[in-house]
Amino acid sequence: MCQLLGMNCNVPTDIVFSFTGFAHRGGRTDTHHDGWGIAFFEGSGVRHFVDHQAAIDSPIAELIKRYPIKSTNVIAHIRKATQGQVALENCHPFVRELWGRYWVFAHNGDLKDFEPVLHGPFRPVGNTDSELAFCWLMQELRNTFGDTSPAIDDLRTALERLVPQVAAHGTFNMLLSDGTALFTHCSTKLCYIVRQYPFTAACLSDEDLSVDFSQVTTPNDRVAIIVTEPLTNNETWTEFAPGELKVFVDGLPQ
Amino acid sequence: MCQLLGMNCNVPTDIVFSFTGFAHRGGRTDTHHDGWGIAFFEGSGVRHFVDHQAAIDSPIAELIKRYPIKSTNVIAHIRKATQGQVALENCHPFVRELWGRYWVFAHNGDLKDFEPVLHGPFRPVGNTDSELAFCWLMQELRNTFGDTSPAIDDLRTALERLVPQVAAHGTFNMLLSDGTALFTHCSTKLCYIVRQYPFTAACLSDEDLSVDFSQVTTPNDRVAIIVTEPLTNNETWTEFAPGELKVFVDGLPQ
Repeated sequence: MCQLLGMNCNVPTDIVFSFTGFAHRGGRTDTHHDGWGIAFFEGSGVRHFVDHQAAIDSPIAELIKRYPIKSTNVIAHIRKATQGQVALENCHPFVRELWGRYWVFAHNGDLKDFEPVLHGPFRPVGNTDSELAFCWLMQELRNTFGDTSPAIDDLRTALERLVPQVAAHGTFNMLLSDGTALFTHCSTKLCYIVRQYPFTAACLSDEDLSVDFSQVTTPNDRVAIIVTEPLTNNETWTEFAPGELKVFVDGLPQ
Repeated sequence: MCQLLGMNCNVPTDIVFSFTGFAHRGGRTDTHHDGWGIAFFEGSGVRHFVDHQAAIDSPIAELIKRYPIKSTNVIAHIRKATQGQVALENCHPFVRELWGRYWVFAHNGDLKDFEPVLHGPFRPVGNTDSELAFCWLMQELRNTFGDTSPAIDDLRTALERLVPQVAAHGTFNMLLSDGTALFTHCSTKLCYIVRQYPFTAACLSDEDLSVDFSQVTTPNDRVAIIVTEPLTNNETWTEFAPGELKVFVDGLPQ
């Protein structure tokens, strides 16, 4: 199974600590070595890095661990190929533009007999079930709202209708963001934590590394981390219920 | 004025030598320090790097100079902001998906009173004239060919009709690729070179660096480099004529 990592914050924050633990799952502490990717929103722009090397061997992953890119919405993914060969075009996260905003999407799970009709402008470039699901979601959101960008609550309502239609075909743990909110859905496995004042120290499960967040934050900072499996072994992570859709804004589930 | 760099080859080739010279124009040998970007096609996938730091200071540019990513189509850009503020979303190259393929675009020049009606699915995320022109071109290509991906010759014919409509509004030196061909247009300043057997040594104009291509190539390799100003001082570059549109396939102008 692939692994997902998302971050949603009220102020731009770097993801170096969480990504360091997460990247170890790409080839060292787990068997997800069929590529990886990460996308950072920065204003309305996106930095998008994908690599079909294992995250543990990737010079680009090494750069990201050293270069503290600050962002309020981040989506990362480590791939274990189940559908689609190992190729750059099949690495998550995927990016498309809708309503003059970039949308970023990553998926963990397998979809069976998912063959939606794509009659709009969004087409997969690779051959994964995941990119197909993303293109269908983009198409249906555009069909629902036309050329007008909707409010977050309206997007949530639309996704509560659309996402179960995908999830009916298998496992659909997913992260989706347009840079203003992080939309998340759990079929089988997803958990989250909100870090806020008073901050404490956290210890990575996958590497001998800890950080005292009280030293690197201000009392107003709030950061939600959403991940397939808990990244730290001394904090309490909240598991999603199967079928649960959560929207994170400014570091808080709504 | 911004600077453009494109590469089109018959076999995947790294752009380390040319990019090293080009990146020096972002802050050292020239004044283009308002961000930069580069996109590499790899199969149908794209690696896309943008940074709003000067290329000369960017840790991502440093990575690219050291990590030989091999590609048959590359587009790079160093920005001197003329329209749109310095921000990640305004860094070229821009990427969109059309007909299940990624399209990459970069522009050098200024457009005045260019206010096309965008009624289709392609909208700018940032506020440059360049991204607006790219969205309009994508919209008009989709309007021309519908949902069916056309052959390169048909794309060329369509671009010969569309590009002058943009260029009528100012300077429109541009590079555009869908990973199969590199479409180029010159309003004022663009030149190219084709390197092929027998390969020789080349010396960068912007840095004290040379490479003997005969040592790193096979007799079948063919590489076209398209750039705003010649990158080397011991080779003969061919200047584009004003208004000229050239399509490069497998390292050759068609």
